Amino acid sequence: MAEPRGILIKGGKVVNEDFSVVSDVYIENGKIVEVGLNLHVPEGVRIIDARDKLVMPGGIDAHTHLELAFMGTKTVDDFHSGTQVKKEMEIIAKERGVNSFKMFMAYKDLYMLQDIDLYAAFAQCKTIGAIAQVHAENGDLIAEGAKKMLSMGITGPEGHELCRPEEVEAEATQRAITIASAVNCPLYVVHVMSKSAANVVSKARKNGRVVFGEPIAAGLGTDGTHYWHKDWAHAASFVMGPPLRPDPSTPGYLMDLLANDDLSVTGTDNCTFSVCQKALGKDDFTKIPNGVNGVEDRMSVIWEKGVHSGKMDENRFVAVTSSNAAKIFNFYPQKGRIAKNSDADVVIWDPKSSRKISAKTHHQAVDYNIFEGMECHGVPVITISRGKVVFEEGRLKTTPGWGRFIHREPFSEYVYKRIKQRDQVGQPTAVIRKPYDGKVISV
Amino acid sequence: MAEPRGILIKGGKVVNEDFSVVSDVYIENGKIVEVGLNLHVPEGVRIIDARDKLVMPGGIDAHTHLELAFMGTKTVDDFHSGTQVKKEMEIIAKERGVNSFKMFMAYKDLYMLQDIDLYAAFAQCKTIGAIAQVHAENGDLIAEGAKKMLSMGITGPEGHELCRPEEVEAEATQRAITIASAVNCPLYVVHVMSKSAANVVSKARKNGRVVFGEPIAAGLGTDGTHYWHKDWAHAASFVMGPPLRPDPSTPGYLMDLLANDDLSVTGTDNCTFSVCQKALGKDDFTKIPNGVNGVEDRMSVIWEKGVHSGKMDENRFVAVTSSNAAKIFNFYPQKGRIAKNSDADVVIWDPKSSRKISAKTHHQAVDYNIFEGMECHGVPVITISRGKVVFEEGRLKTTPGWGRFIHREPFSEYVYKRIKQRDQVGQPTAVIRKPYDGKVISV
Amino acid sequence: MAEPRGILIKGGKVVNEDFSVVSDVYIENGKIVEVGLNLHVPEGVRIIDARDKLVMPGGIDAHTHLELAFMGTKTVDDFHSGTQVKKEMEIIAKERGVNSFKMFMAYKDLYMLQDIDLYAAFAQCKTIGAIAQVHAENGDLIAEGAKKMLSMGITGPEGHELCRPEEVEAEATQRAITIASAVNCPLYVVHVMSKSAANVVSKARKNGRVVFGEPIAAGLGTDGTHYWHKDWAHAASFVMGPPLRPDPSTPGYLMDLLANDDLSVTGTDNCTFSVCQKALGKDDFTKIPNGVNGVEDRMSVIWEKGVHSGKMDENRFVAVTSSNAAKIFNFYPQKGRIAKNSDADVVIWDPKSSRKISAKTHHQAVDYNIFEGMECHGVPVITISRGKVVFEEGRLKTTPGWGRFIHREPFSEYVYKRIKQRDQVGQPTAVIRKPYDGKVISV
Amino acid sequence: MAEPRGILIKGGKVVNEDFSVVSDVYIENGKIVEVGLNLHVPEGVRIIDARDKLVMPGGIDAHTHLELAFMGTKTVDDFHSGTQVKKEMEIIAKERGVNSFKMFMAYKDLYMLQDIDLYAAFAQCKTIGAIAQVHAENGDLIAEGAKKMLSMGITGPEGHELCRPEEVEAEATQRAITIASAVNCPLYVVHVMSKSAANVVSKARKNGRVVFGEPIAAGLGTDGTHYWHKDWAHAASFVMGPPLRPDPSTPGYLMDLLANDDLSVTGTDNCTFSVCQKALGKDDFTKIPNGVNGVEDRMSVIWEKGVHSGKMDENRFVAVTSSNAAKIFNFYPQKGRIAKNSDADVVIWDPKSSRKISAKTHHQAVDYNIFEGMECHGVPVITISRGKVVFEEGRLKTTPGWGRFIHREPFSEYVYKRIKQRDQVGQPTAVIRKPYDGKVISV
Repeated sequence: MAEPRGILIKGGKVVNEDFSVVSDVYIENGKIVEVGLNLHVPEGVRIIDARDKLVMPGGIDAHTHLELAFMGTKTVDDFHSGTQVKKEMEIIAKERGVNSFKMFMAYKDLYMLQDIDLYAAFAQCKTIGAIAQVHAENGDLIAEGAKKMLSMGITGPEGHELCRPEEVEAEATQRAITIASAVNCPLYVVHVMSKSAANVVSKARKNGRVVFGEPIAAGLGTDGTHYWHKDWAHAASFVMGPPLRPDPSTPGYLMDLLANDDLSVTGTDNCTFSVCQKALGKDDFTKIPNGVNGVEDRMSVIWEKGVHSGKMDENRFVAVTSSNAAKIFNFYPQKGRIAKNSDADVVIWDPKSSRKISAKTHHQAVDYNIFEGMECHGVPVITISRGKVVFEEGRLKTTPGWGRFIHREPFSEYVYKRIKQRDQVGQPTAVIRKPYDGKVISV
Repeated sequence: MAEPRGILIKGGKVVNEDFSVVSDVYIENGKIVEVGLNLHVPEGVRIIDARDKLVMPGGIDAHTHLELAFMGTKTVDDFHSGTQVKKEMEIIAKERGVNSFKMFMAYKDLYMLQDIDLYAAFAQCKTIGAIAQVHAENGDLIAEGAKKMLSMGITGPEGHELCRPEEVEAEATQRAITIASAVNCPLYVVHVMSKSAANVVSKARKNGRVVFGEPIAAGLGTDGTHYWHKDWAHAASFVMGPPLRPDPSTPGYLMDLLANDDLSVTGTDNCTFSVCQKALGKDDFTKIPNGVNGVEDRMSVIWEKGVHSGKMDENRFVAVTSSNAAKIFNFYPQKGRIAKNSDADVVIWDPKSSRKISAKTHHQAVDYNIFEGMECHGVPVITISRGKVVFEEGRLKTTPGWGRFIHREPFSEYVYKRIKQRDQVGQPTAVIRKPYDGKVISV
Repeated sequence: MAEPRGILIKGGKVVNEDFSVVSDVYIENGKIVEVGLNLHVPEGVRIIDARDKLVMPGGIDAHTHLELAFMGTKTVDDFHSGTQVKKEMEIIAKERGVNSFKMFMAYKDLYMLQDIDLYAAFAQCKTIGAIAQVHAENGDLIAEGAKKMLSMGITGPEGHELCRPEEVEAEATQRAITIASAVNCPLYVVHVMSKSAANVVSKARKNGRVVFGEPIAAGLGTDGTHYWHKDWAHAASFVMGPPLRPDPSTPGYLMDLLANDDLSVTGTDNCTFSVCQKALGKDDFTKIPNGVNGVEDRMSVIWEKGVHSGKMDENRFVAVTSSNAAKIFNFYPQKGRIAKNSDADVVIWDPKSSRKISAKTHHQAVDYNIFEGMECHGVPVITISRGKVVFEEGRLKTTPGWGRFIHREPFSEYVYKRIKQRDQVGQPTAVIRKPYDGKVISV
Repeated sequence: MAEPRGILIKGGKVVNEDFSVVSDVYIENGKIVEVGLNLHVPEGVRIIDARDKLVMPGGIDAHTHLELAFMGTKTVDDFHSGTQVKKEMEIIAKERGVNSFKMFMAYKDLYMLQDIDLYAAFAQCKTIGAIAQVHAENGDLIAEGAKKMLSMGITGPEGHELCRPEEVEAEATQRAITIASAVNCPLYVVHVMSKSAANVVSKARKNGRVVFGEPIAAGLGTDGTHYWHKDWAHAASFVMGPPLRPDPSTPGYLMDLLANDDLSVTGTDNCTFSVCQKALGKDDFTKIPNGVNGVEDRMSVIWEKGVHSGKMDENRFVAVTSSNAAKIFNFYPQKGRIAKNSDADVVIWDPKSSRKISAKTHHQAVDYNIFEGMECHGVPVITISRGKVVFEEGRLKTTPGWGRFIHREPFSEYVYKRIKQRDQVGQPTAVIRKPYDGKVISV
């Protein structure tokens, strides 16, 4: 079937992060051409009736998956002193439009960076205007903890959490923020999984640090009690790092902080393995491939646990699933907003419908679903990507290769405006300090 | 001079709460008609060159000053049991477009309400969709504290603070939030003056309460050490309730929380008395008329301490001086945003200029200025109110009567969307509770 | 059988709050005569073999149960202005040796005091050197909450907790501490039942307030999920005020704070009703008599959850079950310590034995036990009260009338030493304040 | 003059950590022989009139100064893998009676240990029953910070603090506690200098960690604003690591936490250099020898700021200057208590006298005093060490060589009793976890 000349979404409630209003949206050539009432559109346009539906910016998954191999152990030695790696970061940022780099504090002997290397990496991010992302867990303690559990005969999936309790995550989060603060570099903490790590992020923000915390769908929608499930395959399907936490009040707490802007954006860290693949770790939890599903159900889970529960409204939902990521990674309002001239990435959402999540009906190949059985009020009806309908009537319509890398400029204003100003005027301090030679220094 | 047909603001950087972009703004008939580049405008239009300037929504001072007399002592007795007062609230809300009511926990024997009356008032606000505002100080403790100070011979302005230390404010803030929470009513805490009260608000928000805290220009720009100033007139000019705090790290802390959305909007609680009027309390601090200046310098003080210091960016500045108030009091985006169809309330701001605040040059009648001598980077160049230039070249051009009351609808979505949802699905609780008869109740 | 001339406890490990040491203890005439190794004792003395046992000071239940009727509603009106009540307090303290008074913020229209009356009562306690005790719950909110629950058709025991969630307790705790602080009066918060109320106490102590928090055996040993139990009688047996909390991490958290001296002493608030008596509230939870068992199992429950779990050591156990209460209520080291000249109140404890708590075997008349089925490591073997064995071989041997009221002097040094010093030198403040006339005032 | 046969301290108020009582104290052969009223003593005994004086256990300075050279950089490489070092620790503990080891997280390329080495060292301490002590500052960040300051042209003493702000201390404190917690090893944090580091310790204790924080006299008695003093020599005399903090509310805050048992003991970290020695760093703060005076004035400063201010009572003073250190390092009640059979280490204290601290009158060789000019209420009159008067009438009477090393047994009960119990029963966790195979594991 020929593509229509354009698409008119008619009568829906357009939801942006700041407010909602009933309005039509007209799309042509992958862009939103007009937002308003009673729009005049050419003939041959497809008209979508969106009455009683919400029209929202498409979700943006903030995980970059650009954990570059050169961050690994081999080049770590060169990192601090040398320029090999720094130069590469600069080239990647300038020529390839990558404006964020992910560093690991976990995965000892593989990706783990020492503090002094983190310092150098954060400093380089600052120089080139990138956002430093960090996987915050203390890799040394995980390695020792895993040994200890195995030596105690704990080989099952529960060992995965027991060897890296939430203090291990909170400690690393605190350390990463302190190091980033030392170079006045913005920081983005991926997959914040525990109450204590979230508290660390929240407190740092209150103290004025430019730091963003990202909870993920798994952490907002389920918890780590599943690691103790009697069915090994069930338990193993929840294994990821950092782990889900056994404290059952964790998901609600993370959602409260997300609603209140203590946490900023949601990701999935989607990385799925089949039961067969997971079985590699049948006798040793350290060999279970890390990763859970999430990308397909992210919007539904966050809507259910966040909006349907009354913890956040639909506008905040747009902020945490779309607008904030677009701002941080510097392509707002091209993406992240339903507005004239923005990319036509749109979700039409039915807040009155509901569905039940199940591995039997999902579109991913993987044979389980960590949200199995969750009743979700709020269902996507149509998804439009750059002007093209990619999901409709419960069916994916994506063509391989439709995904497109977005070239992102460095020095995102949302992230760097305050940073630059502070560098210029000096850091604000609680008490203005008088130096011994009479001049006032504030650092 | 005849009014021009319209105004074209050309080449400025339009700053909204979500992002900034260089754009022209065209105004006609009190409305913003278009925002975009290279706008075609009719002849006879006034063109304002805004290159290198910021074009921001006009500031909104959130203090309603509608502390209605019937909240006072005489009718308190009738409040809880009777309907006299509740009915009036309903009529005022419906017929007069008032959607917020301010209640006092201070001013014993005058305005102070007991807890049970606050409960009733909050419940009525909830019913009619209004926002409950509260002046949070423990009136009993202030009365006893004042007696104690006077009996100790402390009669000067410092007694004003000593008789009502910040615990007195924090306690009442906690109490108000607890009571509002009991009826699931949104709450707006006016003039948050201390770190501990701000912490109470912040923590409540993190726990999911729909509560907004308002610091004011005085609290963000100066502190309570002035109450101990040797010059009585100087000290007395800072007297207001709740008082400014002697802890000099207070203003910076409040600004950090404002930057981080733990506090939401800024007001002034402007209420000025001359030195002669203040002198009523020369021998007894309890007789000093309460009030400080602020309205004129609010934008400059917040820019200086917030944006120039690097604690917030220009977009957050717009949020806390304009957009958030418009959302809370339900006239967004009519006000609070530079956008097509919004009211033409615009400030053209020069971030490169600076000025020094002084009573000698300000436009208010009062003979002192609590921000005296403050260097402010960032100066308003032109202010436009509903399409008319009201401030230009350092001169006010307002005509008496230009101010207009804005009719506000109840049940502001920004405030009530979550509230309604919770009433419908039940309050989210950390642990889902199973009642003894097997049904699940969440409260 | 004739009473022996004295008792020699031989070879046990004497446990005081500061350290433990193997030692003999010799008792005569109700007093400890000597503590040491290889004591020479007269003939005819009973010798108790305490090898491998602990010899600890007898437990002291801090609840005074002196909630005097004149605190009730009728005289409240007279409290603030009048001297009727104040005078009585003074007489009771001086002539009857009562040095603590309990005030209620709950039980509206019955015992509940308004803030201004609390202020007056606390001030009078301060004057006469008594400790102010407070039942901290917001009575107004409980009354309204109960109405609301009943109107929603919630009539079962779970309504008891739902109408007074922990915010209601935490708010009142904060308020009581603020009021006590305003008169610099020491405060003792009875039955701290929730994490948030405990946090309020902890924070106040860290800020230098002289405040003591008392968790009780019920709150340390079980939780409020039982209110949702399917068996009404079971659920009703847990009803007390403030209620046990449904958050299952509460008991462990309270124990952590008790171990760390954020909370100070343990009580029971023992007050038991039979199932028949509880049944008064079958159709209306507000009619269920408030009270749970606890006095008999207090030591075992705290040992199990505190010492056996590794949260506290045996010395801290002695502090929280005995020594601290003796210090606060001013009869230390007469009681609360195994030392020469102290009263011979001694528990001989077998840390290696264990027992299971059950209503079938306990010594109280009541037909249920809220700790039913709890396995307790650590069992009392012999209890000695003023030199007389009152419990042995699992049997109580008390004679009616053996209990004796202890005359307590006012102005306990443990409580009042700091208070007096502060009154003399002024309250310590974070920032020394310079008054406007040049003198330094610290308040 | 011949030594008297014994010493009778008559009529003083004996102050122990748990209570105070007027009593005589009789001393012979370096031991306290008797404590009681109207003691009968042999002839030839020296009688000291202690009426109106306090008789307290001698102060114990908890700093071990056993920072063994083998902890330095050369052997670090061997630490984790090898047994060279572990074995030495064991021998030192067993044969030489050392039961604490101090590890450094600061002093990069000199003493600084990496996390994995800390883990190994803490694990070894646990094995041999020693207390792990830690100097908690992030050495990497200090090194980078110092470079940065010097590159900005900041060479004066203020650079010392600016390059290692309190976050650097708080981060390392959090990390050390997390690592110690991973091996369930008790931890002692030396010289806690900042509010944020103290908060980390406090929170860990509340969460049940066996961790002790030690503020020092300098941190309790003065602050870091002196680094900005115009006189270089003055500023330099305050240089130590971690530095004193510029926030002037720090000392009062640390004292509040010390009073409340969030911090446990006081030290001095006494290490003095003359002005000439300090001048090595005239042009580069990194070359200023680190160290301040303190040992001589410790008791006076803590009494003044702690007891005289009303923040703690005399009993808590004894606990934090003497008893707690004796308990932690396992020689209580041999030291740390005025009791029969204890060592005769006694201070006779006049709480009514006062003196002014000055370099002109102190007994140390160093030519400045960081407490210069401090008015101290409370003065030591006589100090007795192991039965011998070593200070009297303002003069030191020590003989070189009088100091004696105290052999200390490992596995101090005060420190290890809970640790052992937890190892036996498993760590208490908030939520009991059910493993996937049905067994209950608590870790």
